[in-house]
Amino acid sequence: MDVVEVVPSFEEYAFTFGGVAPLRRVRPGTALRLWSDDAFCGALRSAKDLSSEKVDLRFVNPQTGPFFVEGAEPGDTLALHFVAVEPARDWGASAAIPFFGGLTSTDRVATLQDALPDTTWIYELDRARNTVTFVAQHSDLSVELPVEPMLGTVGVAPAGAEVRSSLVPDRFGGNMDTPQMRAGSTCFLRVNVEGALFSIGDGHYRQGEGEACGTAVEGAMSTTLIVELIKGGAPEALPAWPRIEDDTHWMTVGSSRPLEDAWRIAAVELVRWFGELYGLHPMDAYQLLSQISEAPIANVVDANYSAVVKARKELLPPALAYDGVHDDLRRRAATLL
Amino acid sequence: MDVVEVVPSFEEYAFTFGGVAPLRRVRPGTALRLWSDDAFCGALRSAKDLSSEKVDLRFVNPQTGPFFVEGAEPGDTLALHFVAVEPARDWGASAAIPFFGGLTSTDRVATLQDALPDTTWIYELDRARNTVTFVAQHSDLSVELPVEPMLGTVGVAPAGAEVRSSLVPDRFGGNMDTPQMRAGSTCFLRVNVEGALFSIGDGHYRQGEGEACGTAVEGAMSTTLIVELIKGGAPEALPAWPRIEDDTHWMTVGSSRPLEDAWRIAAVELVRWFGELYGLHPMDAYQLLSQISEAPIANVVDANYSAVVKARKELLPPALAYDGVHDDLRRRAATLL
Amino acid sequence: MDVVEVVPSFEEYAFTFGGVAPLRRVRPGTALRLWSDDAFCGALRSAKDLSSEKVDLRFVNPQTGPFFVEGAEPGDTLALHFVAVEPARDWGASAAIPFFGGLTSTDRVATLQDALPDTTWIYELDRARNTVTFVAQHSDLSVELPVEPMLGTVGVAPAGAEVRSSLVPDRFGGNMDTPQMRAGSTCFLRVNVEGALFSIGDGHYRQGEGEACGTAVEGAMSTTLIVELIKGGAPEALPAWPRIEDDTHWMTVGSSRPLEDAWRIAAVELVRWFGELYGLHPMDAYQLLSQISEAPIANVVDANYSAVVKARKELLPPALAYDGVHDDLRRRAATLL
Amino acid sequence: MDVVEVVPSFEEYAFTFGGVAPLRRVRPGTALRLWSDDAFCGALRSAKDLSSEKVDLRFVNPQTGPFFVEGAEPGDTLALHFVAVEPARDWGASAAIPFFGGLTSTDRVATLQDALPDTTWIYELDRARNTVTFVAQHSDLSVELPVEPMLGTVGVAPAGAEVRSSLVPDRFGGNMDTPQMRAGSTCFLRVNVEGALFSIGDGHYRQGEGEACGTAVEGAMSTTLIVELIKGGAPEALPAWPRIEDDTHWMTVGSSRPLEDAWRIAAVELVRWFGELYGLHPMDAYQLLSQISEAPIANVVDANYSAVVKARKELLPPALAYDGVHDDLRRRAATLL
Repeated sequence: MDVVEVVPSFEEYAFTFGGVAPLRRVRPGTALRLWSDDAFCGALRSAKDLSSEKVDLRFVNPQTGPFFVEGAEPGDTLALHFVAVEPARDWGASAAIPFFGGLTSTDRVATLQDALPDTTWIYELDRARNTVTFVAQHSDLSVELPVEPMLGTVGVAPAGAEVRSSLVPDRFGGNMDTPQMRAGSTCFLRVNVEGALFSIGDGHYRQGEGEACGTAVEGAMSTTLIVELIKGGAPEALPAWPRIEDDTHWMTVGSSRPLEDAWRIAAVELVRWFGELYGLHPMDAYQLLSQISEAPIANVVDANYSAVVKARKELLPPALAYDGVHDDLRRRAATLL
Repeated sequence: MDVVEVVPSFEEYAFTFGGVAPLRRVRPGTALRLWSDDAFCGALRSAKDLSSEKVDLRFVNPQTGPFFVEGAEPGDTLALHFVAVEPARDWGASAAIPFFGGLTSTDRVATLQDALPDTTWIYELDRARNTVTFVAQHSDLSVELPVEPMLGTVGVAPAGAEVRSSLVPDRFGGNMDTPQMRAGSTCFLRVNVEGALFSIGDGHYRQGEGEACGTAVEGAMSTTLIVELIKGGAPEALPAWPRIEDDTHWMTVGSSRPLEDAWRIAAVELVRWFGELYGLHPMDAYQLLSQISEAPIANVVDANYSAVVKARKELLPPALAYDGVHDDLRRRAATLL
Repeated sequence: MDVVEVVPSFEEYAFTFGGVAPLRRVRPGTALRLWSDDAFCGALRSAKDLSSEKVDLRFVNPQTGPFFVEGAEPGDTLALHFVAVEPARDWGASAAIPFFGGLTSTDRVATLQDALPDTTWIYELDRARNTVTFVAQHSDLSVELPVEPMLGTVGVAPAGAEVRSSLVPDRFGGNMDTPQMRAGSTCFLRVNVEGALFSIGDGHYRQGEGEACGTAVEGAMSTTLIVELIKGGAPEALPAWPRIEDDTHWMTVGSSRPLEDAWRIAAVELVRWFGELYGLHPMDAYQLLSQISEAPIANVVDANYSAVVKARKELLPPALAYDGVHDDLRRRAATLL
Repeated sequence: MDVVEVVPSFEEYAFTFGGVAPLRRVRPGTALRLWSDDAFCGALRSAKDLSSEKVDLRFVNPQTGPFFVEGAEPGDTLALHFVAVEPARDWGASAAIPFFGGLTSTDRVATLQDALPDTTWIYELDRARNTVTFVAQHSDLSVELPVEPMLGTVGVAPAGAEVRSSLVPDRFGGNMDTPQMRAGSTCFLRVNVEGALFSIGDGHYRQGEGEACGTAVEGAMSTTLIVELIKGGAPEALPAWPRIEDDTHWMTVGSSRPLEDAWRIAAVELVRWFGELYGLHPMDAYQLLSQISEAPIANVVDANYSAVVKARKELLPPALAYDGVHDDLRRRAATLL
């Protein structure tokens, strides 16, 4: 199986979902190895580089893409299987950007208070130990943390001719910032426009749930993925919101404000999926997930907040989604590693 | 070490935090074995028992307590260590109560829509297999699920002379409905009134994160716990909101609406705790938890919603909270088992 | 018609709804003239008196009451008609209390930012001109504003044996902080406990909608009101949430978080009231209020946020609520002035 | 003064802000008379026309525009003065669209409940009496209501290369659904792209605050407006969010979720504007608006909720915004009537 490698130049970065010409056309079944820059476009390289001075907020969260998937039409479902997500630099950066984050007032949670101190933390990567190191900036502590690479942003062009900033998570995916988007996962997205026009970016060498300060250990990433397309299907069985499957869990991601609505969206979507997988009446699916679901918060910092609702497969009878495409992709992925 | 057994009569059940005379006085260091009824006071015993017919909503979530802890004064911290939380009946019940739950309109998320169908599910307990069995009511599926007992409700009398329903989670603890409240955990609560006046109840044989439909596998419970008291301490080091410690995690629980505020409360409390444990400046604690925190939703159904923010101890340098009382309680607990 | 005058001593102030012995018993039909202290218990008398230094937050929003209404039982509706609401001092005070208010982080909208500067503004009352004067503290401007007296807090004892701080608005009324609570208005509250146990307080010489900084022009007040009781009635016709009637409007008040839920509650309650007043189907009431309702925000600062939904009577056919008790109270009030 | 008349064909309707080629170029100072279709593109003409059958949700809220304003550049402020807003048909329509509106679950406030009954109400216009008539569909009542025409939607192309549905209100204006957008008002919007690219639509013959059911008395409209451009200005004095001035009030409009954040945004923007108009320190502006602001909810139904914060000019010292452009536009408008 061939792998098509794509390393975009800065001029090729996309900063929106939708509204951008395809970077490349790919056929379903293609494996891609995609280099993506970090959310700051590499502007923060030392703890002295402050986001207010170095980061041009018009150019953050650069996307690698979009990719035009041949044959993809509205009414189809795009499956992206992440084979490998690997740090492409030896350091990551995180910042408390003024008036951005979960424990500060923001442009929307608007108050009259002063901003928190603009602070940058650089995390050196130790490839041998597979760790990054937190070094306190206002106090005295350093802590070595395991690398757990993930993609903050995976999405397709939105419906309704909308174009959204790459900072936004919504139905089309986007900046969901969930640690569940990692190697071994398959993400299902409803296709809204011809060609789907997906892109990825915002690599995180690791991230806590909630992404409290608004930025993870942001790092350039090399992502290997396989593109698959599920044609047609009953309208009621199409994912209304992003779904993720891995070897252990069924997952859905809701994004809205307030945070309870993000959770509601994800929970209703999982009720729908349980209906498809197990033939369950919505009330029974509701009851079952009340007792088994895990509900990690993804982000409380972006334009929409995101919540994941997930169910452990081993608690449930065997079932296949989309004719078992995830298992098939796992097999194909194994040939690439 | 002696264990004081308490099995309240129905007349002794408490339905509020605060406003109730102590059921018993206990000295710090006492071990208690407490029987608690289920949230429905045992009214749902068959799938034909509908909540709208059988449950008197003035008498739900009965508490066992309150207990007057000798020597406890405002400015102290109460520690409750859960030694064992064990099903006290052979079945649990769950219900979709009309206009109560996370995927329905409610008295507060008020709409003009009809209620969802009032439905009861009974879960038979298999003690040998340590499972409860979900049986679909509107479709055809049954699923055996592991028992993972927990307490929905643990709290003390509120501050400011308030009296709150046992359905409410807030600063005083209460109906937080987090699966983290289980055997092996130590819960720290700020003492608001003389004697602390804590109570427990709302046993769940298992519960998903979010408690989507509003009720878990509700069951009578036998809880063994050790009461400890941490006297005085700097005001700024007192827990402002419930904290939980177990062998693996530091945890805080926030309860408010909207859900992002519950998360914010818990995250700020963990920032405070990191300051105490590691001497970290708030900005550094904020950054560190941005990269390591787990953030499971507890409930999206109660009078306040609850979110947990937690950090894995093994990622962090060794530290002791409250002079290591959790480890000490673990040792004492071991003598009881 | 006699008027019973009540001027409580400091020791008689109530700081909760519920949980306090009646100050006095009154018969339905009684007129009362009640002196109430300001929300700060008079502690802020100069712009140099800072809330962080002078105000004991355990003793704020003092209530005059509670009054035990003879014959009032759960299932009845209490009507309080405000005949006159008049400043009882020659100055009012307002303050930006640290971490309290709408444009700052708070204990619930928790962030890591510093508090806004603790600032007090004193408003001198000019009785002849019926104005209070705003004097800027950090800049140079003074503005004379008309006095528009109102009561921030009107409530009864809560249901379910709860006791709530006088800072809380909820179903039982309480700290709703709506400028609609003024002379000429009749407030309808569901009776939850024998005697109703109503109290009033938190006089405002004037207040903007939203009460942005958390405090109005707080002032001691002399309130003349008539107490009336509506016995029994169909359970479905009892007010579930506070209702207000004046000569021009039907009004409902919802209190919850997030603010949209406060609005939803009030809107659903007005749909219910339209059903009673005009025999309208809920869908038609929903449509009608979509085109005619006014929806002023009351507060975005208290433990629950409050929103008012109101409809102008002159747009609607003639109708009487509770057999025309408001008109009757207006006539009786006229004999007192 | 000439008036340029524009009546778009269906093919010329815009359904987004941004992403559409200009319909026409206009110079600052131009007066336009714009015909706009109703939100349903005229599809609901009888109470038997149900939205689920007749309305293509991909084509709702048609905009007349966008107009390229010559000389407009990012960093400028666009002023649109509404001279006249007049019904262009003899009937309006309103509908309870399934899963859309404020008192129903929606795609974001997601529940498992059934939709409310799809219902359409037609309002006949009586030009002589200047009224529209509500006719109940599920019960028996008709009510004649004054016509109070307004525009639900006024906006420019968004920043950041985004393209947003005409159903969305945000910083760029858009579907704010505030009754304040009426004849006599001047709306100020920050210019984000060359030419500003403004459009208008979504005429309402009348609308209640909150737009409870999600649709007003939707009607085709003839709007006369004057376009003006305020060049440059200090970045800190540019409107961050829409501002409205009329003869009596200073107003700001915030749009976000939850609703308290919409209010916060508008309140902070009015604090900023008070700083410009009166030289007030933010704390003093905060205090002053706490006592004088009116805060009508605009919508609780759109993709973002909108709140207006407004201050009555007569309570404040005389001041001019943008060198008095509103007064000047009023004078010019008078020559057109």
